[in-house]
Order: sequence, then structure tokens, then C-alpha cells
Amino acid sequence: MSALNTDLYELTMAAGYFAAGKAHEIAAFELSVRRLPETRNFLLAAGLQQAVEYLQNLRFEQAEIDYLRSLSQFQYTPPEFFEFLSKLRFTGDLFALPEGTPVFANEPLAIVRAPLIQAQLVETYLLSTFAFQSCVASKAARCTIAAEGRPVVEFGSRRAHSPHAGILGARAAYIGGCAGTSNAEAGMRFGIPVFGTAAHSWTMAFGSEEESFQELQRLLGESTVFLIDTYDTIAGARLAARLGRPIWGVRLDSGDLAPLSREVRRILDTAGLQEAKIFATNDLDEHRLAELVRSGAAIDAFGVGTQLATSGDAPSVSAVYKLVELKTNGTLQYTAKFSDEKSTLPGAKQIYRYPAHDLLTLSSECNSDTDAEPLIKPVLLAGQLLEPLPCLKAVQENAAAAVRALPPELRSIDKPAPYQVRTSSRLIELAESLQRSIRRNSASGR
Amino acid sequence: MSALNTDLYELTMAAGYFAAGKAHEIAAFELSVRRLPETRNFLLAAGLQQAVEYLQNLRFEQAEIDYLRSLSQFQYTPPEFFEFLSKLRFTGDLFALPEGTPVFANEPLAIVRAPLIQAQLVETYLLSTFAFQSCVASKAARCTIAAEGRPVVEFGSRRAHSPHAGILGARAAYIGGCAGTSNAEAGMRFGIPVFGTAAHSWTMAFGSEEESFQELQRLLGESTVFLIDTYDTIAGARLAARLGRPIWGVRLDSGDLAPLSREVRRILDTAGLQEAKIFATNDLDEHRLAELVRSGAAIDAFGVGTQLATSGDAPSVSAVYKLVELKTNGTLQYTAKFSDEKSTLPGAKQIYRYPAHDLLTLSSECNSDTDAEPLIKPVLLAGQLLEPLPCLKAVQENAAAAVRALPPELRSIDKPAPYQVRTSSRLIELAESLQRSIRRNSASGR
Repeated sequence: MSALNTDLYELTMAAGYFAAGKAHEIAAFELSVRRLPETRNFLLAAGLQQAVEYLQNLRFEQAEIDYLRSLSQFQYTPPEFFEFLSKLRFTGDLFALPEGTPVFANEPLAIVRAPLIQAQLVETYLLSTFAFQSCVASKAARCTIAAEGRPVVEFGSRRAHSPHAGILGARAAYIGGCAGTSNAEAGMRFGIPVFGTAAHSWTMAFGSEEESFQELQRLLGESTVFLIDTYDTIAGARLAARLGRPIWGVRLDSGDLAPLSREVRRILDTAGLQEAKIFATNDLDEHRLAELVRSGAAIDAFGVGTQLATSGDAPSVSAVYKLVELKTNGTLQYTAKFSDEKSTLPGAKQIYRYPAHDLLTLSSECNSDTDAEPLIKPVLLAGQLLEPLPCLKAVQENAAAAVRALPPELRSIDKPAPYQVRTSSRLIELAESLQRSIRRNSASGR
Repeated sequence: MSALNTDLYELTMAAGYFAAGKAHEIAAFELSVRRLPETRNFLLAAGLQQAVEYLQNLRFEQAEIDYLRSLSQFQYTPPEFFEFLSKLRFTGDLFALPEGTPVFANEPLAIVRAPLIQAQLVETYLLSTFAFQSCVASKAARCTIAAEGRPVVEFGSRRAHSPHAGILGARAAYIGGCAGTSNAEAGMRFGIPVFGTAAHSWTMAFGSEEESFQELQRLLGESTVFLIDTYDTIAGARLAARLGRPIWGVRLDSGDLAPLSREVRRILDTAGLQEAKIFATNDLDEHRLAELVRSGAAIDAFGVGTQLATSGDAPSVSAVYKLVELKTNGTLQYTAKFSDEKSTLPGAKQIYRYPAHDLLTLSSECNSDTDAEPLIKPVLLAGQLLEPLPCLKAVQENAAAAVRALPPELRSIDKPAPYQVRTSSRLIELAESLQRSIRRNSASGR
């Protein structure tokens, strides 16, 4: 992925910082979500691996630099800037929540501390990487909760916002608790278990449904899943029952799933296929899953597509990347924005998690309370990875444990439950004194 | 992009078709949208260029084939299949709506006619490519309509579903009528005009707002856009007015945009900066744009981010890819699905557009009516591009003309207006006779 994959203003600002002699100032930017979506009681941090890979490979190709030079916005840029860009690498620090950590509004998912230009340039990429995967991961956690132990498989690549988003969505869904994905490339790249059944086109491509089922059984043996609704679900179930073993199960993809599943269950049981499973798909989300579970549907596993891959109820979040510190000539300055509805808190921060609340402090504060663990960890120091990131299976397990450790009302999928994020008195004082000083400057300065 | 970026079942079905001796049967699949989103009166076809590039580069690497062999789902697959996969290329035909064409429910955006395995494998990629870009393109068309001639710039990369989705979203938004994008890589790759201003972090990185504005002006000259809301919008406007030329304009990013813009306009005009423009951002969509235009806001151009890049009101559509024809041993068979709510019409189709309705026919039908133009064009024949695809600027112009040619009520952004898609009697007859024959087989066959 090219370093050019960023908003143009990051590049013009970079040129401006360079021209103003600010290339070596050290900035800290914080990436956080301003408000949780109304439908989510928490998000799950995800996307760190892609962020690390991006930062470690950040560089501009000559053709990209030539492109920038050709733009009118760079006509007054000093030529040395383009030379500087050609040598640019990420040499800064990255601090982040480990993937799979529940996170709340205004808590940093990541903090970049680096030379100002580097830290500014990476904004766009980091925002889209963290926000999207965190949305999908928490959606998957909600589906997993709703399924009450039944496996949920991510089936949404075809509805993802581009084929790449499909792969990253599969990854995030696995972090959130999905048993696997249908996306074969995600399987190969991330070691995620892959699952699949057959499409209606398979059934239609043979002279009869029976022939299509027999061919599938020959191919897949005990992994066989018959898709039984191409023509008529009950007739399809009877055909599956008649063909018998080897079989893993059948898939329902239309109709009223709860009563249909019970009828199909009876048909399979009557044929002695008690171990054959019923897999259900068809525009499912966490609410449909909960409803099916509650109504006693005879469904053993779910495939969730569109709603997972697009984070359907919250296809975007108000993720922001804000300058919180700037070190100029050795002097550390805290920065914040206080305008109207979009205020931010100054200073790089740390999060401490207690049983029923979080505490947001300055990262430089000493929290002597040994009961609480600091959540934000160093990941890159001077551009180098401190230690290998955990494998995705470990991330999934950590996420499940962290979600279980949350106050139980936060695990509700339909009742909003606020979570208290307290701000340390030191942080509040800093924000207030900074705001006073900006008001003073603003009143006198112009 | 790897050929492995597909749903696993496409690959197991491919193995099954191979094992069943069906590798050389010729299939036709149609990609269409089952229902328009409730909030859209039309979609704009987009994504064809990426589909063509994907099909022309379709191939499996050895490591990918080795990965597939390692999966339990392929344990009974004949080894010759993997040899077959290693040589697989796309040798089929692609027919499609030109990008930028308005399209309605159940009308094919694309038709793939190819050996069954090839046509099946590409389903997942084509669905995610066409559906996402078509959603964003039509969202952009709606924003363009609402802005009544004021330029709309796509600013949403940071909220896109992955950095790749940001680039493709920028492309689609340009097709739909946006004046450009903030995404620099989209600018370089697709020749889309790029725009940008400065972020709040720019203002905060200097000792004062005044210093930050002066540095920006030095860098950008007549392209300078001051972001005036970091501390206080009116004070920021007064500062911009005091600094004066060179200036392109100012950006508002918070607060009540309509009255603020009028006040800022007065401040700029009083300073003799009548030509300085006011650019507005802040969670805009087509409805906010229309409201601002209606209320006489003094805004000259809009930046729309999140809602465009994620197609906020319709982050997914019910795009499907259905087998409609299969030629087995020289015999053409029409296929369709008739179960419950998800029926499809058999046969590869053509669309004729009349002033107030479309006519959907079989592609093999002769429509002697010379008033109507067939919309679906051949793009690839035997894997080869018939002629270069039009440049993106031409696509944008064609889209604008096609949207203008629609019945005017379809251009409403808040009133649903249905559009009539008629089905030819030949197509209805074919569907009915096919359904009768499937019912007969189903009644007698088991």
C-alpha cells in the first residue's frame, strides 16, 4: 500500500511543516472514537497488525513524488521537500490497545509519537484501518453473544466495501469471536478457519437437485452441507434425508427459519440423521440470532454476511486523530481543540481498567493504584517492533475474556448501557488551564 | 489481487464441477440488485474497470493452490483439479452496463458468459466490486443534485472500510458527479482532481492561529483555504479577513453552518475579499446539502466525507449473481430460482431504455423498436477487451447526462419515485414454462 494513500492535505501540511522548519518537532497524535454508535455498548480494538505493517513499510516511490510535484498545490513548496519525502521512513513510536480490547468513547485506540510530518501523514490510513476493523470486531462480538455458544461464521465478503475490505472484515470478525470465514484469502493470510457450503447455482447446474446433492456428497464426504431451499425447502430436506450419510448437515437460506428448522430437524431425525446439523443464513444479524435462539429454532450454527462485513448498524464511527502534544525546541506543549461540539483533551493518555469503570490519565501520570492495569502498550519504538504481535487465535481468546470481564449489562445487544470513563484530576486541570491560556491569547492576540 | 480472494464454496464448487466433468460447460451468470435501497430512486453502475482488471489477471499462485490442497474440504478432490487451477485464466465474455448508467432493481449490471468454473469463481469479487462502487456513485449523484451546481468534493477516505475502499470510493464518487477527492492515490491512479485544505492539527502546531495561517498562505498562495474553527469561527474569519490575499477561501467545519456562513461572508466582503470562497464540511450528506442550499447559506462548495465513502444510508445492497443459462453438450438450458422471496428470471438479458420506462428482454430476443437503445454492451470477448474503457471524465459526463434524462421525479432526493421496468412477454413465458417444468420434475422425480 502506497504512502500516497492519504488525504492530500496531509501532504500539503507536511510540505508546510517542512517549509516552516518544523520537520523535526515531535508530535503525539491520538486516535479515538468520539462517540460510540447508539447501538453499541463497546467497541473492540482491531486493526493494529495492518497499522504496524503500514508504518513499517511507509515510503514514497519516485513516480508518486513526481505526481505530487505536478500538482498546483505544491507549486510554492521548496524542492528540498521532495528529496526529503523520497527518504522518508517511519521512525517514531506507536502505542496502542492490544487488539481485542474493549474500548469506549474518547479512549485512545492508538497514539503515534513521531516527527510531526510522519505523524501527520499517517492519519488517513490509520483512521480507516482501526475504525473499520474495530466496528466489525464488535459487531462479531455481539453476534457471538446472541448465538449463545452456537458457532457464527462470517460470510460477508461479497457485500464488503471492496474485495480488500472483505479480507479485513473477515479478520476483524474472527477477532470478535466468529468461528471462521468464507473468505479463502483471509484463511490463507491470517490462518482463519474457512467454511463454505454450496450456492443455488450448484443445484441449478445439474439435471436435478438429487444429482447435484449426490455430486456434492462425492466431493465433500462428511463435510457435505446440502443447500436445501433452491426449489422447495421441505422437499430438499426429504431428499437430504433419503440420501443420508456421509453428511455434515443442511443449510437453510430462506423462509421462516424457526419453524422451518424444526420441521427439517424432524425429517432428518426420522431418517436417523440425528448428528446432521442445521446451518442457517439469510440476512441475519445479532437481533435475528437472539430471536431464533429464544424461539427454540433447531439451528446449530449461523452464517452472518452483510451485517457483519459492513457493520450494518454502524457502518461508520466518529473516529478522530488529534494532535495532543508537540515538542518544539525541547519544550513540550500540550494541545487541544475547544471549538463547539468537537473538543478534545490534551496530552498523550493512558487507560486504567477497573471492574466497573475506566480511568483516563495522562500517560506521564503515575497511577499508584496497583489494582488496575494500564491498557495501552508500546508497540513500535523508533520504528521497530518491540515484540511480535500475538497470533489471531490468541487475540480472539483475549477478546472473549475481556468481553466476559465487562459489567454484564454491557453485553446486552438491545439495551444501551453506559460505561463510566473517569478523567484524572490532573488531566482535567491541564485541559482547563490550556483552555484559559488559549482564550487569553485569542482575546489579546488579534 | 489474488484469485483466492473469493468465498471458499466457489472453490469447492469448482472442484465439484471439475470432478463431475462439467468444466467445459458454458454458463451465463447475471449480476443484479434485487431491490433498490428505500432511499434511492436509482443506482449508478460503477466498478467495471476493476472487474475487467480482475478478470484479465485472474490466476492462482502455487502457494495458494498448496493452501487449498491442505484444507479438509479438498481431501476427496481429484489431484488433476489443482493442476487445472494452476493453468486457469479467464477466457470468457463479459457484458455490462457502461459505468455511470442509471440502473434499477433486477436489471443486470453485468453478465459473465464463460466456462462454468471460471464464471462461478469470480462471483465474490465481482459482487463486492460492482455493488460498493455503484452505491457510492449514486450517493454522489444525489449529493451533486442537492448542491445545485456548487462543487462537491469527496473527503471520506478516513471513514472508508479499509484504505483500499477509500480509493475505490473516491473513484465512484467522481463518476457520480463529485468535483474531486481528497485521496492523493486516487488522484494519481485515476486522474481525479485532488483537493484539500488543512486540519485543526495544523493550526495547533503553531504558536498562534495567526502564525499558522501565515505559514499556510506562504505555502499555498492563491490555493490557500483557512480552516477557521479551531478555536472560534468568527475570530478565525476576522483573522482571515485581516490577512487578506492571496486566498482561495475559508473552511467551516463545525457549528450552525447556514448562519455562520452568512456572518463569515459579511466579514470577508467587508474586508474586500468578495472573491474568497466559503467551503463547508461537517457530517454532510445530500439532505444537509439541500437544507443549506434552501436556507440560503453562503457556501460555495461542499466537502462530503463519511456519508459518501460508506454510502451511509445504504451501506449494502442486495446484489446477487445468479446462474441464468447453462450449455451442456451443446444444449442450452435456462435456469432460475423460484423459492419463496428470492426468485430470479432465467436467461441472459438485455435492457432497453425508453423515456419513462425500461424493457427487460432476453438478450437473444430481437427488439425491432428502433427508438430504444440496448444498454448492455460487450466488454470482454474470449477474455480480451473489445475496446479501451472510456476515461473517468467521460464516464462522469455520461452519468450526468443519463441522470438528467431520467424522469424528473427520480432525481428527488427525499421522495421515493418508482421506475417501471417492464418484462418482455417472451421472458415471462420462459420463466413460467421453466417453473412448470421444475414443479413437474420435483413432483415426479423424488
